[in-house]
Amino acid sequence: MQLARYFPILRWGCHYQRHQAMHDLMAAVVVTCMLVPQALAYAMLSGLPPQVGLYASMLPLVAYALLGTSSTLAVGPVAVAALMTASAIAPYSAQSPALGLQAAVILASLSGMVLGLAGILRLGFLANFLSHPVIAGFMGAASLLIASSQVPVLLGLHARGDSILTLWQAILVQLGQAHPATTLFSGLALLFLLATRRYGQPLLQAAGISLYWAQVICRMAPVLLVIAGILAVQGASSWTAGVATIGRIQPGLPALALPSWHASIWQSLLMPAILISIVGYVESISIAQSLAIKRRERIHPDQELMALGAANLAASISGGQPVTGGVSRSVVNTDAGAQTPAAGLFTALGMLLASLFLTPWLRDLPMCILAASIVVSVLGVFEWHVFSHTWQRNRSDFCALLATFLLTLLVNVESGISAGVILSIAMHLYRSSRPHIAVVGQVPGTEHFRNIERHAVAVCPEVVTLRVDESLYFANARYLEQKVLEVVADQPTLKHLVLMCSAVNDLDGSALEILQLINRHLSRLGIGFHLSEVKGPVMDLLQRSHFPQQLHGHIYLTQYKAYEALSCVPASSG
Amino acid sequence: MQLARYFPILRWGCHYQRHQAMHDLMAAVVVTCMLVPQALAYAMLSGLPPQVGLYASMLPLVAYALLGTSSTLAVGPVAVAALMTASAIAPYSAQSPALGLQAAVILASLSGMVLGLAGILRLGFLANFLSHPVIAGFMGAASLLIASSQVPVLLGLHARGDSILTLWQAILVQLGQAHPATTLFSGLALLFLLATRRYGQPLLQAAGISLYWAQVICRMAPVLLVIAGILAVQGASSWTAGVATIGRIQPGLPALALPSWHASIWQSLLMPAILISIVGYVESISIAQSLAIKRRERIHPDQELMALGAANLAASISGGQPVTGGVSRSVVNTDAGAQTPAAGLFTALGMLLASLFLTPWLRDLPMCILAASIVVSVLGVFEWHVFSHTWQRNRSDFCALLATFLLTLLVNVESGISAGVILSIAMHLYRSSRPHIAVVGQVPGTEHFRNIERHAVAVCPEVVTLRVDESLYFANARYLEQKVLEVVADQPTLKHLVLMCSAVNDLDGSALEILQLINRHLSRLGIGFHLSEVKGPVMDLLQRSHFPQQLHGHIYLTQYKAYEALSCVPASSG
Repeated sequence: MQLARYFPILRWGCHYQRHQAMHDLMAAVVVTCMLVPQALAYAMLSGLPPQVGLYASMLPLVAYALLGTSSTLAVGPVAVAALMTASAIAPYSAQSPALGLQAAVILASLSGMVLGLAGILRLGFLANFLSHPVIAGFMGAASLLIASSQVPVLLGLHARGDSILTLWQAILVQLGQAHPATTLFSGLALLFLLATRRYGQPLLQAAGISLYWAQVICRMAPVLLVIAGILAVQGASSWTAGVATIGRIQPGLPALALPSWHASIWQSLLMPAILISIVGYVESISIAQSLAIKRRERIHPDQELMALGAANLAASISGGQPVTGGVSRSVVNTDAGAQTPAAGLFTALGMLLASLFLTPWLRDLPMCILAASIVVSVLGVFEWHVFSHTWQRNRSDFCALLATFLLTLLVNVESGISAGVILSIAMHLYRSSRPHIAVVGQVPGTEHFRNIERHAVAVCPEVVTLRVDESLYFANARYLEQKVLEVVADQPTLKHLVLMCSAVNDLDGSALEILQLINRHLSRLGIGFHLSEVKGPVMDLLQRSHFPQQLHGHIYLTQYKAYEALSCVPASSG
Repeated sequence: MQLARYFPILRWGCHYQRHQAMHDLMAAVVVTCMLVPQALAYAMLSGLPPQVGLYASMLPLVAYALLGTSSTLAVGPVAVAALMTASAIAPYSAQSPALGLQAAVILASLSGMVLGLAGILRLGFLANFLSHPVIAGFMGAASLLIASSQVPVLLGLHARGDSILTLWQAILVQLGQAHPATTLFSGLALLFLLATRRYGQPLLQAAGISLYWAQVICRMAPVLLVIAGILAVQGASSWTAGVATIGRIQPGLPALALPSWHASIWQSLLMPAILISIVGYVESISIAQSLAIKRRERIHPDQELMALGAANLAASISGGQPVTGGVSRSVVNTDAGAQTPAAGLFTALGMLLASLFLTPWLRDLPMCILAASIVVSVLGVFEWHVFSHTWQRNRSDFCALLATFLLTLLVNVESGISAGVILSIAMHLYRSSRPHIAVVGQVPGTEHFRNIERHAVAVCPEVVTLRVDESLYFANARYLEQKVLEVVADQPTLKHLVLMCSAVNDLDGSALEILQLINRHLSRLGIGFHLSEVKGPVMDLLQRSHFPQQLHGHIYLTQYKAYEALSCVPASSG
């Protein structure tokens, strides 16, 4: 069983049945059809030869099927990872395409090692520090960057830019030289894709096709477009002259090899590899969990890290680019009926057959058609209303969102994500460093105690009760001390101070130190210091430090008992 | 009244009375006697001419008296700030003593600006991020560094070192060349200081002197030593030949001037100035608060920042080194009966008189006597048992303590404090990112719900209740999601999931997003999602986001009501 924990294939493989195989095979056919053009497109987006995308869609899928815990996650090249790969290897691609390819393979290797190591060290929780606004801001910027990078391809231009601003400047300057046939092709492709996305399914259903098949056909729209594009180029060669096509794809299978050793390249790609790993992991685990819950299955985050790590190492030794779990393909895989990770194995087989037999035919595929499908897919995924939504809900979340978005868009992914994470953490720490501390009084006739500023409650001049609405730790302990000192300075009649700890979930060493300090301060003034409603784990901590023995007062089980003992409650006549 | 908020002198100055003046004057005489040798010693520790310490003990005290909120805080040069000043200005002192002095004045200026700006922006809370272990580790390392820096002076050597290790290496190599008379002087001085610290007070009391005067005399031990040292050098000049003395102190008062403008010096000193400000502020506010509570007075942290900022600016324009509130002098000031900040004004006057009339006489003061009083004071302040103490209590606090201590000692103050702060924050975030989440059940016969792993409780197979013992925010929201998904995957009979929110003090946007996601997941499976015991402020947040309307379930006031409604409680027969 221990082995099955690290190789989940042992768990489902033993009971694999024929009817499952039929479903998996069916799903694999659908996913393969989708993956061929996507693999080519994402290789192009990364600035790599088209076969690199195909290579990244074989062995990585096998590796994930052996180690992954999701039944239906579809691994392979994805848009965001491809964009990040493009920007990481850009300095090397500029020197020579071969060096760029080497860098991509090294990046996959590094990314595999980072993910694997994170899995072994159980660091999956680190991804949680990418808060929702940071992810949203990053995805928004990434989709704009990806779409912008495809605009020159759509127009048949050679515009380049180091940043999105210089790129658009170059595009606008060269706009007059746009290639007419390419632009026409692109326009038609965009129109077709947007139309099927919007009207395809209802139209097909109106034509009497079932919902399921209508959905499948609509998802195959990019494949249909690819076929149409190839046929158009082959059939009307005079008319399509000058339309850039993929060109010769090296046929056959990848040669397995270790990535080449250039210490300086490995070193410079470490940071991008870490970022690709984090972003890829977050994308992958989110979709995997959301699909698993539908089937009431469990995803093991640390095992997922190792599976994705293995997939990237597999990509690396087979000459592929970095991979991760893709959102759209995983959804299609699930909807098409995939039952087990075997669907991934069949998809890998499908990609192998495609690489062997389809490559001569794909050479006439116009690049602008791939670009159009990239643009429509990335702009369709991102929800722009997240900006107004977040603004209405929470201003500090909005700051993190905007900072991540702008810095990712205008500077780079590293600064965008780091700024977002640091801002989120800083704002969280700021909030928890100034906890809500209320002076509470007794709701007459009850055993309840409420904020004296919000409720009509009875207070007793010699006893002040403070309720701290936060766990106490170093960043807010001194704030509590300050509040206590203010109460003491303002109330000359004070004889007892009660700290109501019903909301204190935890206490660290610094907070304990401050409680002892408050105790010393108050005992010197002859003021009693009491605690009430202390939770079990916090009480354990206090006991271990001998605080209760030092306390110039008592620890009461409930606030009411404290009030009773400090004779604030008139003795009941019963 | 608004003006009095920024100039607290307006508040106490209006009612200042004769008997207060007598007390303040008495305290000022005592503090002045202490401050003259200390000012000289800390100037020496910073590697500055002796009069710089005297200058830093006049105008800064006036500035603090006008703006400060503590009645008895004694501002001036202190050991830790002097050490940090020495290391910040070292590169300039090495070029020329005049440049070093300019750098010290610029450092005071920058430190004043940093403190003042922090006060205006109300950033006092930032100091709370220096957790107790970080401060303890820093103080331990600082006291060792300060004491080590005085060893060559005690032995009459010229040993120098960039780090504590190279310094001790140099000392050990030169040990044979120690100056006999200087070493003898130092030994006697150390013996005298340690003996009075340990036995002085009981001996004097045994001799019939009252406790108060016995304490005063013991605190004056360094002053007596200074007088004895000067007399020895003047009286036995043949015998004390070669003992290094302070030498000529520029007599008279400081010339007021703006610090000189060297952009590169200002820039390079910014970071050290920020650190000196933070460390000085923490030292100052801690002692000020601890003294204020005894008199039941309030300290206003942000106003203190401005007062300390003004004191440093005053130091800067009068050619002094950075200042802050000192622990030992403030205690003496309070014990000697200071009633108002006027005691500080009188002390400033005392220092002025000392600068005018004592300087010719102080030129024969042996340096090693100042060094001995520095060593005894810094090593006496630090409590070494904090290491074993922290180790027993909390391992992660100990890591922060040790990292701060070692890095401060062996590398520098910047890396020590930053490593400590980052470690403290990281460990806090780690803890709160994996909150305690318990499955709870009903304690039979009561309305209480407890952890099913710790208590014998009744559960109901179709309802699972999770209690989250932490506020929910981006770093732990996905952990909750993961736990919920695991429960759903493991319990095929599950019909209702209740989230008991009694310990959830706050909720951020990411956590809300995850709650909505959990709700969508569960509603797709037909599982009810309920909340119970939601606190008021959290409920407000939920209402604003329309979460209750989307919820596939209910929000119950108490967990018992939830259990009743979900028919887990057998209907009572009454």
